[in-house]
Amino acid sequence: MILDKINNHVDLKKLTIKEKKVLAKEIREFLIEKISKSGGHLASNLGIVEITIALLTSFDIDNDKIIFDVGHQSYVYKILTGRKQYFDNLRKYKGLRGFPYRRESKYDFFETGHSSTSISAALGMARARDINKESYNIVSVIGDGSISNGMSLEAINDLGYRKTKMIIILNDNGMSISSNVGGISSYLSRISINEKYLKIKNKMKHSLDDTVIGNISIKFLSRIKDGMRTFLVPSKYFEAMGLTYIGPIDGHDIALMTKVFNRAKKSESPIIVHVVTKKGFGYMKAMENPELYHAVSPFNWKEGIKKSQIETYSSRFGKVMIDIAKNNSKIVAITAAMKDGVGLQEFFEKYPERSFDVGIAEEHAVTFAAGLATCGMIPVVAIYSTFLQRSFDQIIHDVCMQNLHVIFAIDHAGIVGNDGETHQGIFDLSYLSLIPNLIIISPKTINEIDKILKWSVKQKYPIAIRYPKGIDEISLNPISSISLAKWEVMSYGKNIAIIATGKMVQKAVLAKEKFKLDITIINAIFIKPVDKKTLKYLAKNNYNIITIEDNTLNGGLSSQIQLQLNKFVYKKTITAIGFEDKFIEQGSQEELYSQEKITIKRIKCEVEKIRRKYGI
Amino acid sequence: MILDKINNHVDLKKLTIKEKKVLAKEIREFLIEKISKSGGHLASNLGIVEITIALLTSFDIDNDKIIFDVGHQSYVYKILTGRKQYFDNLRKYKGLRGFPYRRESKYDFFETGHSSTSISAALGMARARDINKESYNIVSVIGDGSISNGMSLEAINDLGYRKTKMIIILNDNGMSISSNVGGISSYLSRISINEKYLKIKNKMKHSLDDTVIGNISIKFLSRIKDGMRTFLVPSKYFEAMGLTYIGPIDGHDIALMTKVFNRAKKSESPIIVHVVTKKGFGYMKAMENPELYHAVSPFNWKEGIKKSQIETYSSRFGKVMIDIAKNNSKIVAITAAMKDGVGLQEFFEKYPERSFDVGIAEEHAVTFAAGLATCGMIPVVAIYSTFLQRSFDQIIHDVCMQNLHVIFAIDHAGIVGNDGETHQGIFDLSYLSLIPNLIIISPKTINEIDKILKWSVKQKYPIAIRYPKGIDEISLNPISSISLAKWEVMSYGKNIAIIATGKMVQKAVLAKEKFKLDITIINAIFIKPVDKKTLKYLAKNNYNIITIEDNTLNGGLSSQIQLQLNKFVYKKTITAIGFEDKFIEQGSQEELYSQEKITIKRIKCEVEKIRRKYGI
Repeated sequence: MILDKINNHVDLKKLTIKEKKVLAKEIREFLIEKISKSGGHLASNLGIVEITIALLTSFDIDNDKIIFDVGHQSYVYKILTGRKQYFDNLRKYKGLRGFPYRRESKYDFFETGHSSTSISAALGMARARDINKESYNIVSVIGDGSISNGMSLEAINDLGYRKTKMIIILNDNGMSISSNVGGISSYLSRISINEKYLKIKNKMKHSLDDTVIGNISIKFLSRIKDGMRTFLVPSKYFEAMGLTYIGPIDGHDIALMTKVFNRAKKSESPIIVHVVTKKGFGYMKAMENPELYHAVSPFNWKEGIKKSQIETYSSRFGKVMIDIAKNNSKIVAITAAMKDGVGLQEFFEKYPERSFDVGIAEEHAVTFAAGLATCGMIPVVAIYSTFLQRSFDQIIHDVCMQNLHVIFAIDHAGIVGNDGETHQGIFDLSYLSLIPNLIIISPKTINEIDKILKWSVKQKYPIAIRYPKGIDEISLNPISSISLAKWEVMSYGKNIAIIATGKMVQKAVLAKEKFKLDITIINAIFIKPVDKKTLKYLAKNNYNIITIEDNTLNGGLSSQIQLQLNKFVYKKTITAIGFEDKFIEQGSQEELYSQEKITIKRIKCEVEKIRRKYGI
Repeated sequence: MILDKINNHVDLKKLTIKEKKVLAKEIREFLIEKISKSGGHLASNLGIVEITIALLTSFDIDNDKIIFDVGHQSYVYKILTGRKQYFDNLRKYKGLRGFPYRRESKYDFFETGHSSTSISAALGMARARDINKESYNIVSVIGDGSISNGMSLEAINDLGYRKTKMIIILNDNGMSISSNVGGISSYLSRISINEKYLKIKNKMKHSLDDTVIGNISIKFLSRIKDGMRTFLVPSKYFEAMGLTYIGPIDGHDIALMTKVFNRAKKSESPIIVHVVTKKGFGYMKAMENPELYHAVSPFNWKEGIKKSQIETYSSRFGKVMIDIAKNNSKIVAITAAMKDGVGLQEFFEKYPERSFDVGIAEEHAVTFAAGLATCGMIPVVAIYSTFLQRSFDQIIHDVCMQNLHVIFAIDHAGIVGNDGETHQGIFDLSYLSLIPNLIIISPKTINEIDKILKWSVKQKYPIAIRYPKGIDEISLNPISSISLAKWEVMSYGKNIAIIATGKMVQKAVLAKEKFKLDITIINAIFIKPVDKKTLKYLAKNNYNIITIEDNTLNGGLSSQIQLQLNKFVYKKTITAIGFEDKFIEQGSQEELYSQEKITIKRIKCEVEKIRRKYGI
């Protein structure tokens, strides 16, 4: 095995081109073996093996800097920069990160996790280099999905204007997380018809026979071909922006890429190298279904991934959406390149004319929804909690200021787990609570989504529905009926009331049952507005209050409750359980809730503390 | 006067082209007269007179919809849609809005204030129309600065992909608020050299003789000419995105535009009409210095605007920046098309190699700063509070998660006044407080900026400095020295402590002096982290606490204090003064602080309430 002898980029540089090809094979085997055990991002890393080898051949990362956009395709880079031996703990609690991480390696120059930050960051580095009169290379490696996000386009606009020396490697696999959408992507697919591309096509056919798994489908080639409609000179788009364009070239041809990268290094102005790759390259199952193999849980690689039949918050949301849309022609679904992730695949198939995947464009998604709402449609915008941060201004300025009936379906709220700090959904209750006019609501169990969504469709103002990744700990009966700002009192007890939101209600119920706690449990189904009547009752009857939420304590449920209680005479204790003021790393959901002391034991402990304090 | 007889778009349609030209003249006179008295956006409205007339001639807004991007250039539209008679109260408290406002007119189809939302909103309307099988026209009118923001590019990307029927009018005046920057703008200036443009040039010369003020400089024509370098086929950029392109055409030629708009209406796919205008057209002083005449305070139009010598928070910030940069070569300044607004014009002239105006691209600005910071530079990002909302995710994900030493200079925090709800800076303390690692600091008076900025440069973590628009109410001595999380106790009193932030400290001091209040006054110079020691002292000594801040009470200073006090035994009252949970309309700063009861009288009143309650 060559890979056994290669620990880092210095070792790699010594290999011949033949050895590098063998190395690529071995890295694929390594990736498939490790990721199928640990879970992680598979298809994108299989696609970027040769690009990474060529990059580390052409560039000298002891001087030069490489920034991987989104960052989940940096596994090969990690393998080749001294971190191969940590892959058994990939994405595990305290283990190797699934994204670039500066504290992990001096070769991780910038931490990426959200899309389309790499060109801006790289441009910052390039301008710092120029101010300091230094002369190294800076490379942004970015996918065709990420490059069509607004932030990338802003950065390219700036880059092209000042002509800063910098290299962009456009890794074009014809799709981002979901299949790619937008004018830029159709532009990219159109340009692929030119002569250079046809040469690549033949080359790719050849290289396919070379790959690990052997039994390779070449269907994807004809699929790319179907997308080709017009002939366009490929350079025009980027050259209009002030960049020099090279490509498209075969992103699985190490020798060719090395040569081109070496040429790009010599340019004193910005340059973009367009390489065409295949997501999942070398592993047939992933090539045939790259979306399924994008981010995987542990699976048997010989058998492939079995589609899960377990109902999650996302899948239930998708089902209810279909149900509602059947009898309401005003319902429209919007996602930002995540229709599978948010559970809307079936909806998109069933109602294509009312389904809009706008690509990785969260800002546009929200204002687009606002436009739809002004014309009487009822748009449901489904975006993960962490990515919705990108739409913060649009939620305030375009939806809530005009008090428009847009429904936000906020998936992956709270701890998401192994993706780590860039993906945790621990801020949304805070950044949404501060926005006037917005109603925030959360189901305590999966089966409460139905009523909440159906109720939301009937209202006339902006509503955010937030729910976590995954499944329930226990099942509970859904609330009997919903009315604005009315909480559900689930059980009665003396002196102490637990006010919990979303899935945290399950923890409160579990704690009460397990430890036989004499407490009132309230499902704060509305985080905003809070239930003033219930709070007034609790204050009047001298209840001690414990709040529990899967959100930072800086803002969120406890703050909303405190704000209200300050208006009454409240003489008792409020104990807030939630996340402290810090970023939360990777690990399983369980490990992280336990680390952050959001557990049934903690509830018991806080109840006991209050009892001791007041002698009750 | 023709304008006297024209009340709305129906009247307008009856005019001959000759009469419309006279009307354009009269509207310019009307604008100059009214805006020079009331203050408001002058140059951009002077530039858009003919476009608006042509739009209302070609389109039927009883069916069709027109969305003005940014919205400050909608005055002419307001004049011609029944609102002429309200211009004496333009931008005043309870008066005519300076931006489109749906509750003001059924012809204001979408409320705009922040840049680059119009294409997304219009596309939402267009898709709603198509779903409902209706057939009207939808037009987005957008400037060359706004179209280069990421959000616009995301929307164009989506628009071009699905080929939705919609019209974009690109109003190209060669500058946004500051002079325009970026690859797209240099692309637009390059394309202007083509033959069509040369014809326009002659036409423009002619039309110049036609205008109100008579004594017109034609300097701007040669300035445009200087920008022309390359010949490029103008259609390529937008056509690559899937749009049909027409232009450039003369944006002051009503007949030509009417013809072209009529043609554009017939297109069943997206179309962009590129019109070239001159900001400030018809008023020489504004044409020569459109930035100065962008948003004006009342002035004498015959004499022109006298540059103010009054020191503001912005101008002081600019001076201190120059001072610091002299001895520290790592200081870099970044703005997003607002270098004058934030007071950095002189810095940009003095240190061009360390000055970056990235255009209307707040997302890119912040991550670009993060990139600079990883290379040891100290970037100072100066953006208004309301516009920084666009960078929310980047502050979290790219700056604070990596704990990078980026300094945010947040101007126009609190009430900004006459721009109204789209521009108030009343959310920043909330949306910034929830972010781990970020230090938030605010000067109580203009003369405290020096120490704060100098201190911030010496730290190693992200810091947000926030300060209001305008000038001080009273002058106070700056804090003697700054240390992290240490508040300044300004005066001592019994039982009651007022904790105030920023300029609100002035109100506390004024209240104490005027009403002879026996209270402690604390300058909470750090909003985060709060001063635990001082809070502990106050709790231990049974102080009642009044907080006062120019921010929503949903999050912000009072929440930070509450969060900390919950950790001690605190048995007294916290009274929070700040903005209630709503958007705040236009008016003078004074009027709005008074409306929101953030006044010295209120302070007195709250102090008395507490004294009564506890008999102290």
